[in-house]
Amino acid sequence: MIRAYAAREPGAKLEPFEYEPGLLGEEEVEIQVEYCGICHSDLSMLNNDWGMTRYPFVPGHEIIGTIAALGDTVKQLKLGQRVGLGWYSRSCMTCEWCMGGNHNLCQTAEGTIVGRYGGFADKVRAHQGWVLPLPKNLNPATSGPLFCGGITVFNPLVQFDLKPTDRVGVIGIGGLGHMALRFLRAWGCDVTAFSTSSDKEAEAREMGANHFVNSRDPEALKTVANSFDMILSTVNADLDWGTYIATLRPKGRLHFVGVVPHPISTHVFPLIEGQKSISGSPLGSPTTVARMLDFAERHQLEPITETFTFDRVNEAMERLRSGKARYRIVLKH
Amino acid sequence: MIRAYAAREPGAKLEPFEYEPGLLGEEEVEIQVEYCGICHSDLSMLNNDWGMTRYPFVPGHEIIGTIAALGDTVKQLKLGQRVGLGWYSRSCMTCEWCMGGNHNLCQTAEGTIVGRYGGFADKVRAHQGWVLPLPKNLNPATSGPLFCGGITVFNPLVQFDLKPTDRVGVIGIGGLGHMALRFLRAWGCDVTAFSTSSDKEAEAREMGANHFVNSRDPEALKTVANSFDMILSTVNADLDWGTYIATLRPKGRLHFVGVVPHPISTHVFPLIEGQKSISGSPLGSPTTVARMLDFAERHQLEPITETFTFDRVNEAMERLRSGKARYRIVLKH
Repeated sequence: MIRAYAAREPGAKLEPFEYEPGLLGEEEVEIQVEYCGICHSDLSMLNNDWGMTRYPFVPGHEIIGTIAALGDTVKQLKLGQRVGLGWYSRSCMTCEWCMGGNHNLCQTAEGTIVGRYGGFADKVRAHQGWVLPLPKNLNPATSGPLFCGGITVFNPLVQFDLKPTDRVGVIGIGGLGHMALRFLRAWGCDVTAFSTSSDKEAEAREMGANHFVNSRDPEALKTVANSFDMILSTVNADLDWGTYIATLRPKGRLHFVGVVPHPISTHVFPLIEGQKSISGSPLGSPTTVARMLDFAERHQLEPITETFTFDRVNEAMERLRSGKARYRIVLKH
Repeated sequence: MIRAYAAREPGAKLEPFEYEPGLLGEEEVEIQVEYCGICHSDLSMLNNDWGMTRYPFVPGHEIIGTIAALGDTVKQLKLGQRVGLGWYSRSCMTCEWCMGGNHNLCQTAEGTIVGRYGGFADKVRAHQGWVLPLPKNLNPATSGPLFCGGITVFNPLVQFDLKPTDRVGVIGIGGLGHMALRFLRAWGCDVTAFSTSSDKEAEAREMGANHFVNSRDPEALKTVANSFDMILSTVNADLDWGTYIATLRPKGRLHFVGVVPHPISTHVFPLIEGQKSISGSPLGSPTTVARMLDFAERHQLEPITETFTFDRVNEAMERLRSGKARYRIVLKH
């Protein structure tokens, strides 16, 4: 029996919930959960914002724990080993995307909290391919968020071959943005933080920003016109995207990892004139997660977290909802 | 004295016009014009659609001719040599973009017909850097359009490292699109032509298309969902871009080389989910033009043209305006 926290209906408080997971699949792994980060998508799923939530709903997909049980064919993991699990917990392993190392683009990849029970629990299961060993010099108490928020902002650096000589902007200093600043500083880039919260400037600079710009100030944005090789947007708010496109250098890219409420709209002429791109990307493949963990360990890049015990899970969810978390909340047993 | 054809005001007919070009600059070249293609942007400029036309206005930026005079420092070109000149006739040569081989992204690059007199004339001048030798096995009577329409669709194949194993769609079978089909077939790709004109299907297949899809038929577009690594849009019409984004495979790119009237609009979720991009690009650098000419010569890829003598220039402009040209009009002396 697995003991979890579940919402019985959209927007409901989380309550203790037990379920029988059945036989462990040959290629599955059971993780004894030690820590689990809370991501905005846990909240969106709890509220059924995307119309795909099944209830009872157990959130949690930034999981750190130890291997409690191994399927019969699993060889590369060991009982008791410390591992992490993120947004995805299974992909088909045989399509061209999985076979090509792009498991995160598998059309049938399964979310850890989509149609299955997540990591707000004492145990959780996943396919072995998506369970990654945590390097020993990363702190298990703070590393959970690397497996969703972290990989979301790290993946584009790999996918688009970002150079240490590039100038990069990060829109939003929250759960994703603060990790982006740390990765980019360690990557060697010139880093600009865009935020509406001027009180975050000092922290943003500590986290790695060389520059700070108010993201809603048109005059400030004009001063950085023609500046950036890449801008990573981590926010879920509508901004004046045309102005951000104007802040890109030729060949620059405005890249979205956060879903914004309304369609983005742009004239094509600025894209044509400067050979600019607009794009998006989802999380990362297991090999990219492994590269991120190695990079994070080498540079000691840890998410900044607030910790709540699991019995205060509703309080933690409320804190996330309030937007006051600095910068990611982690639950612990 | 240079004898040209000029419009005296927006939308006016072209009339004979003479001007004194002054001393030839040290790094300039004077070309004796033999042929000059007509591009839609000649028409847009004649009508002052972009608000940057100076009158009298001399169109013409798909020029083939022979070198009539050389500036004092020009070494790599010879008198009498056959050359081509396209949209750009000068760039600063010293900014990071020029120095990096991306002269087409130079912020002060000068258009052949923007603030200067173009190729509807017996002679035209340009900076040596933008005057490219025409390979001897390319037909001078039909090669002019390579220097604007051709390079516009060839450049993205180079910029985005298109693979011969890729599946590519081309929207629009006109001056640009028909050349794109030829280039892509020779590039080795699987090629789909999108057009509203079903009477163009046979020709599109002859030019290189493996498949033909009606670009305004939602049902037909659904059958090619999740198909393309790249789509090149050559049209100046608003289409349902969201549907085209859905026809891209993961990591696919919807690339604009034609300016469409209204802003393009898309939800970011499909971009994020499939790691897709929307982008644009302008023409190409001189080295990319040279690679295109070499490729076109090796594969004998010539634009399909209709020819008018220069004294019928207004008739030729009218034919372009009517949309009936198959597929590019070239003027000859």
